[in-house]
Amino acid sequence: MKLSDGVEWAIHCVMLLGALPQTATLSGKALAEFHGIPESYLLKHLKRLVASEILESVPGPRGGYRLARPPKEITLLDIVQAVNGKRPAFRCTEIRRRGPCGLDDSAYPRCCGINRAMMRAEVAYRDALAEETMKGITDEFIASADPRIIPLGQGWLADNMRSPKS
Amino acid sequence: MKLSDGVEWAIHCVMLLGALPQTATLSGKALAEFHGIPESYLLKHLKRLVASEILESVPGPRGGYRLARPPKEITLLDIVQAVNGKRPAFRCTEIRRRGPCGLDDSAYPRCCGINRAMMRAEVAYRDALAEETMKGITDEFIASADPRIIPLGQGWLADNMRSPKS
Repeated sequence: MKLSDGVEWAIHCVMLLGALPQTATLSGKALAEFHGIPESYLLKHLKRLVASEILESVPGPRGGYRLARPPKEITLLDIVQAVNGKRPAFRCTEIRRRGPCGLDDSAYPRCCGINRAMMRAEVAYRDALAEETMKGITDEFIASADPRIIPLGQGWLADNMRSPKS
Repeated sequence: MKLSDGVEWAIHCVMLLGALPQTATLSGKALAEFHGIPESYLLKHLKRLVASEILESVPGPRGGYRLARPPKEITLLDIVQAVNGKRPAFRCTEIRRRGPCGLDDSAYPRCCGINRAMMRAEVAYRDALAEETMKGITDEFIASADPRIIPLGQGWLADNMRSPKS
């Protein structure tokens, strides 16, 4: 069981975009460059973040990506599900119905108990991801970052951000 | 993110083996047949359950598999980790150190905050899996099973279980 690297990339991109002034954007190329990751793969994930209304994509030569809502309204669950989908990690294939002791559908009015137990754990995971907001993660980052990092990042942002007309 | 089908198979096998009298065993072939799953793949997972000391493998012509400890001492976490390994689903690749604003190691004395937040959710998932014992799942199964299922299963077990000498 492994989350795709895209989840890590997406969370870092959302954190960086949260540092922009309100209407400013960053291009996919700039987001890829800042994180040292391949632009073509990243674009696929940015598209999913736009589809999930976490990011906005602003068209045009001065366009790019920006947050669609404030960091306190974006959770890790939102990002993980945008990138990885909403299907649970455990997928019951109903093997209880197979083999020599399998019966007709009437014998299984409820979901398999093993599936229900696995889903209880999955709900705990989702609830915990939903507790983590990008604001909380960003605040913790700012409070504990090496003093060189934030001015360096701000300088880079000033050079790379775009200010679209709308 | 998807858990392998082997997790479902392994949990069902452990539940079935929990229904055997103390020293009795079932062969890998019988376990595969009961669940309508391919024996060769199942054997790989049974081997992992033995390596994790959830099952015992009894050698010899009357041998097979049996539980290495009682169902109340086997949790879903034990089985998931036996089959799927113990690595977390989220694997930080330290992209924070890359790109134009990356600094030397001294700037990163702590684990990345994004990784820490993802790990908090992973701990919640593991804790929830560790709460689910095979005894609890089996009791719930027995309490709610269709009345035809348990006698059918018991008949099949009587025909298929083995009683090794030791």
